[in-house]
Amino acid sequence: MLGAGWTARGRRLLPLACRLLQPRPLRRVCSSGRLRGDSAASGLSEAGLQPLRDKFGGLSVRLSQLRSPESLEPETFRRCLQDSIRQWRTEGYVAVWLHVPILQSRFIAVAAEQGFAFHHAESDSATLTLWLAEGHSRLPHYATHQVGVAGAVLDVHTGKVLVVQDRNKTRNAWKFPGGLSEPGEDIGNTAVREVFEETGIKSEFKSLLSIRQQHRHPGAFGKSDMYIICRMEPSSFKISLCQQECLRCEWMDLAELAKTSDTTPITSSIARLLLYGYREGFDKIDLTMREFPSVYTGLFYKLYHRELPENYRNMTG
Amino acid sequence: MLGAGWTARGRRLLPLACRLLQPRPLRRVCSSGRLRGDSAASGLSEAGLQPLRDKFGGLSVRLSQLRSPESLEPETFRRCLQDSIRQWRTEGYVAVWLHVPILQSRFIAVAAEQGFAFHHAESDSATLTLWLAEGHSRLPHYATHQVGVAGAVLDVHTGKVLVVQDRNKTRNAWKFPGGLSEPGEDIGNTAVREVFEETGIKSEFKSLLSIRQQHRHPGAFGKSDMYIICRMEPSSFKISLCQQECLRCEWMDLAELAKTSDTTPITSSIARLLLYGYREGFDKIDLTMREFPSVYTGLFYKLYHRELPENYRNMTG
Repeated sequence: MLGAGWTARGRRLLPLACRLLQPRPLRRVCSSGRLRGDSAASGLSEAGLQPLRDKFGGLSVRLSQLRSPESLEPETFRRCLQDSIRQWRTEGYVAVWLHVPILQSRFIAVAAEQGFAFHHAESDSATLTLWLAEGHSRLPHYATHQVGVAGAVLDVHTGKVLVVQDRNKTRNAWKFPGGLSEPGEDIGNTAVREVFEETGIKSEFKSLLSIRQQHRHPGAFGKSDMYIICRMEPSSFKISLCQQECLRCEWMDLAELAKTSDTTPITSSIARLLLYGYREGFDKIDLTMREFPSVYTGLFYKLYHRELPENYRNMTG
Repeated sequence: MLGAGWTARGRRLLPLACRLLQPRPLRRVCSSGRLRGDSAASGLSEAGLQPLRDKFGGLSVRLSQLRSPESLEPETFRRCLQDSIRQWRTEGYVAVWLHVPILQSRFIAVAAEQGFAFHHAESDSATLTLWLAEGHSRLPHYATHQVGVAGAVLDVHTGKVLVVQDRNKTRNAWKFPGGLSEPGEDIGNTAVREVFEETGIKSEFKSLLSIRQQHRHPGAFGKSDMYIICRMEPSSFKISLCQQECLRCEWMDLAELAKTSDTTPITSSIARLLLYGYREGFDKIDLTMREFPSVYTGLFYKLYHRELPENYRNMTG
């Protein structure tokens, strides 16, 4: 089996702190995935660290488990980490995930010198990774897209659509009101919220009309942007402009928006799509939404696609 | 004007290092947005730090500009940062962005004690933020979604569609081959790549069929997931299974996939959609793609929506 573990004499000679990251022989993995071993166990449990194995052959180390982080010298951590990495590589682990509370960030540079790099960080914690196996890292990336949503609010009685001019842009182009989704916010809810915040108009989500993907999006911290335009139905009509974000806001004739050059290419395209739907039936342009329970208990997801005729929706084996 | 700056006597008495982060009076902002001032300039430029003002009223500090980071004591940095924050708040700045190279991570905990939190981190750099103004932070979030793409590869001559069974799942459900997009990778290219990697089949992107949004997606590090299924046309037909990812792979009768229970709800839904399109015209189900030049010079974006009739596509004012 991989890794014979430490000899009793070796254990006694090691400074206590160096046992922090003693690798665990794979054969001693218990059902929870926690590593157990005779010699290493005492050192690790005394310091608090308990590396966890995942089902892809990686290891997770959480510095939040350190009982007395203030008393751990970076140099001691460096030596332990170096020894552990060598051992883990020998034992066939493919990667190490290192989770660091923000107040223990002094250990990050130590890990970086051993080859760790930032995977992601948010709020009060950072996650670093080290690929141990051959070749390129096969670890999954962190989130790559921000999601922006706009609402095309069409008053079918007047044929007018709600448009705004951004305050912060150089060119005064008419656009649909919209903005970035909050973390955990559904597409339709972003549209309702942004329309209301920018214009004071209350509306309801009807369908998804378009998706635009752009990489290296300015303002997206080097990441990508998914910009989604939704068809909305208004339930109020009196504009109350948010001066902070918008220069102007009005109900504009949809046919006029579809032809004007005082707009962006994407707004023009979707205005034309919306006009087509307005004149010949929204069923021709809509992606409608259905909600499903996820296989992950307790979570739901929303699925958007072209409406299915009933006979196809209700097919059975 | 806000902030009178430092007196000559005050400047001489300050330790050199403490001038690192001397705030700049707003009136001395030059056209590049860089802050300039008589007294503070010498200290800042000696240490290398040059806070930059952005157009939203925030400040950016880059520790990569430190000339001798090793000689800067964390305690000195703490005092300077504390004084600077007080000054910047007085001067009306709304936020501070602190960019830290991974090897200078020992300054992160210092910043955190002053209220900074991680905004994001990747590779060899972390970005932290501190909201200075009243109320909740209005700073934009980092990326919130990973993007997964699957390809529904339909052989229109046989009516068979390419399906796989995942190796790593407990239940052997038939699905379309797919996987996570690489950073910067277009949706259609992910579909082509993943289909090929998992099955050995070469295919071409035809259209977008569905979008599924799920929050708190397992494996997405607490973030959200956008799962997109594309309609693909095969240009090769001999399966070469990737054993690492897939248990099985076959060309299955589309009508059978649409009715079987040995699949996931989303695969079943899209199989039925695909069958509807196969029988009554793909134009009924497709979201087609058009490419546009972005207003951001040199960049392009792909826009997906229902196909527009020509007379609507070519409307002019």
